[in-house]
Amino acid sequence: MHLPLALEKKAAVPLQDQIFGQLRGLIVSGKLKPNSRIVASRFLADQVGISRTTVILAYDRLVAEGYLETRPAVGTFVSPCPPEATIRECSDRGTESILRQADVRPALFRCPPLPCRLPTPCRIDFRPGSHDPDLLPLKSWLRATQRILGNCRRIPVVPSPAGAEPLRRAIAEWLAARRGITVAPEQIIVTSGSRQALTLIGRLFLRPRDTVVVETPTRTGAADLFEAMGARLLRVPVDEHGLDVDWLPGGAAVLAHITPSHQIPFGSTLAQHRRRPLIEWARTAGAYLIEDDCNGVIRYQGTAPTSLIALDPYGLVFHVGSFSQTLGDGVRLGYLIVPPEMTATAIAAKAVFDDGCSWFEQMVLADFIAGGEYDTHLRRLRKIWLQRRDCLIERIGEHFGTGRLVGTEAGNDLVWLLPPGLPPAAEIAERSARHDIGVGALSADTTCPNGLLFSYGGLDETLISEGVAGLAEILSSVRPHSVCASR
Amino acid sequence: MHLPLALEKKAAVPLQDQIFGQLRGLIVSGKLKPNSRIVASRFLADQVGISRTTVILAYDRLVAEGYLETRPAVGTFVSPCPPEATIRECSDRGTESILRQADVRPALFRCPPLPCRLPTPCRIDFRPGSHDPDLLPLKSWLRATQRILGNCRRIPVVPSPAGAEPLRRAIAEWLAARRGITVAPEQIIVTSGSRQALTLIGRLFLRPRDTVVVETPTRTGAADLFEAMGARLLRVPVDEHGLDVDWLPGGAAVLAHITPSHQIPFGSTLAQHRRRPLIEWARTAGAYLIEDDCNGVIRYQGTAPTSLIALDPYGLVFHVGSFSQTLGDGVRLGYLIVPPEMTATAIAAKAVFDDGCSWFEQMVLADFIAGGEYDTHLRRLRKIWLQRRDCLIERIGEHFGTGRLVGTEAGNDLVWLLPPGLPPAAEIAERSARHDIGVGALSADTTCPNGLLFSYGGLDETLISEGVAGLAEILSSVRPHSVCASR
Repeated sequence: MHLPLALEKKAAVPLQDQIFGQLRGLIVSGKLKPNSRIVASRFLADQVGISRTTVILAYDRLVAEGYLETRPAVGTFVSPCPPEATIRECSDRGTESILRQADVRPALFRCPPLPCRLPTPCRIDFRPGSHDPDLLPLKSWLRATQRILGNCRRIPVVPSPAGAEPLRRAIAEWLAARRGITVAPEQIIVTSGSRQALTLIGRLFLRPRDTVVVETPTRTGAADLFEAMGARLLRVPVDEHGLDVDWLPGGAAVLAHITPSHQIPFGSTLAQHRRRPLIEWARTAGAYLIEDDCNGVIRYQGTAPTSLIALDPYGLVFHVGSFSQTLGDGVRLGYLIVPPEMTATAIAAKAVFDDGCSWFEQMVLADFIAGGEYDTHLRRLRKIWLQRRDCLIERIGEHFGTGRLVGTEAGNDLVWLLPPGLPPAAEIAERSARHDIGVGALSADTTCPNGLLFSYGGLDETLISEGVAGLAEILSSVRPHSVCASR
Repeated sequence: MHLPLALEKKAAVPLQDQIFGQLRGLIVSGKLKPNSRIVASRFLADQVGISRTTVILAYDRLVAEGYLETRPAVGTFVSPCPPEATIRECSDRGTESILRQADVRPALFRCPPLPCRLPTPCRIDFRPGSHDPDLLPLKSWLRATQRILGNCRRIPVVPSPAGAEPLRRAIAEWLAARRGITVAPEQIIVTSGSRQALTLIGRLFLRPRDTVVVETPTRTGAADLFEAMGARLLRVPVDEHGLDVDWLPGGAAVLAHITPSHQIPFGSTLAQHRRRPLIEWARTAGAYLIEDDCNGVIRYQGTAPTSLIALDPYGLVFHVGSFSQTLGDGVRLGYLIVPPEMTATAIAAKAVFDDGCSWFEQMVLADFIAGGEYDTHLRRLRKIWLQRRDCLIERIGEHFGTGRLVGTEAGNDLVWLLPPGLPPAAEIAERSARHDIGVGALSADTTCPNGLLFSYGGLDETLISEGVAGLAEILSSVRPHSVCASR
């Protein structure tokens, strides 16, 4: 039988290994069945034009490791039960079988349950996370890449795990000019996204059963994250002025995660008069505040109140930002501003657990920001998002007329607080998903208002209109009279 | 006084915010001194050509937040003590002051001590981690980037946190062809580097005081990482056949981290006859094996024994690989192969703690591998590293003649086992670093042999020769008679 091998004589991998690897592949993949005869070494040697010894050595190793067996005076055969047969069975058996094998792997079951958050995409998807690729600055990003790689003379022998110098500088300057935040580049750690920044903070402080304050409703993933780290979550409600500081716990807490500039998902901005009290609470509770700013870069109306980190006189605020919100998941880089006295420890933690982000990409982003192309991109994004927001507001008004809109002044999503008489948002979201329209439910948690979440950044006006119309149809089928607008 | 403001009328940020932010910046940075007078709103309005109301609103906010104060009938002044003054003091006070403030932030001191691993670079640096930028495939990487960004139509609405499909497929195919490892793309999780893969595994299994087996000597950072996670380390010695399985603990363990293909830093390859016993040990101990393959991609002699994951019939092996070793830190992407039954949990963990790597970079790497450019790069790298290895071996022979070399058959580093009569490697390394020559010490740990680690991948022949000569000089000054070669 002729063996379908593709050998590269110039390859870094010795021929003998290539034969071994490929034959093994054919056997494991089942292309070569157990007990099937293998072409004799001298024929294979001729076939691929290499020394017979090489082939023999490869065969010997396959025999030694149980993939082949030689039957004296008969020839060489695929062994009746090659090693991986067992593995394939395992993977076929599926997950439940893991229980039967608990004696082999008890460890797995000692880790906290981890939610898997992967919704199936809908044709019209208002759920957070959807991006419009046409809004990505592909051309200017490519130009920046060309500048960087074109002039790349050397990579630092040991790039700082805290991030590439030029990027940390660019972020510091951008924050000063655009967000009124003054920090030294040394306080900035580049992360592979805001999520990693949160993990890093948790790693610095959290022990099992520590108290962590999170907002409710929340959609940042911070709650999942800190819970997975074993923390005890204390959910503080959010209203139209952001986190309701009167509900902050009296006792001690280790961390509090807040989204002040555009609450995720509720959309409200943390009012100025609540900011100083929040910081004072942190000081008394012995907690650190995590100011998650990912969603607040783009504003349409109102001025952003001074950020917590700028107000904080005690060095209790970690400030987290990300570029994924505005650059799409194409570039997943974020940053973490660390209180001066903890910078060294935080960088060490980053080094131990992750050891730094890609250097090329950091340099490209640095160039992109410092050259002003990021701001240009933000201006364009704001213009288009604003049009889409207005279109969405209009359509919701047309079709429903009732209910209130929250979180329209920033970001790329808003919340429609459902009028009384409608089913729970979660139920509506589930139903509309079945009709290929994705909307977010504010929360299944009954303590928070019944609202639907619309992320409009990723959808053009046509899709937005179509989506809202479709949703109206679905809702009317639920409660014909209570939701159709009086048009 | 004329204010140095740079306002952008078309910016996404409202003018009022720009004035506020920039004035605030000037005050906080100290460019505007406390009590200095601020130009009257109408003058500033004229100066920058905007409505006076805008300026007044900005001033009002600066007053409200304590940066400015108005003195009736006199004018507007920088306040005697603007908010951030306090912050600046903090950062000036330096780290020790944190102790005095322990009541404010007790949390920090409850996290395990985290080592910071940042050596100061030397002019001639044999220490691991140094890259030769001339060996980076910048041009072909740029071409791949152009192909990807040029044809980028859309980014998946929710990119899988496990990684971009094409990259997972490309890695799976590459592993089958080049490493004789057959896995489904679904078992592969793309990480931001091998370090993150280890963190992910630790997160899945480790509880404080769990036992983790690590090799000694080791340089992977795995020991630091698992220790920082609270694990109890059990160090198993390595000899010239790799991990000495006879020293594996009798009792239970949760994880064991091994570098079989090119032990880091000792360089030995885990012998075939030790591999199955290792897997059987894992099964009995209820442990998972972490096969850290980062350093074994390039081999000069001998065939790589079948990897542990290919031998393992129980699904107890996590296989970790990285591209940083061969692509430099320019691209920090790695991968983790997860036993089939744990894939879902591991992906969920990745989603919770990091939420996926940059999509552009993943797509570029996928194209780079699938198009064969990665293999081309590896062939070039192997050729040049081989020359450098031979040069290093020759020089060491010339200058010292004594001692033995280990780990020459793969990777880009080797170990010189020091002849008797020489001071501990750590001492030599420290001394040579003072002469701007970086060499690695095998380990300060007295249980392991006294050896110097030379990573030659990042240095051309001239520097290698110069470096060894310099080292010889330093050593001769230590012990004139015992180390000079008899030439």
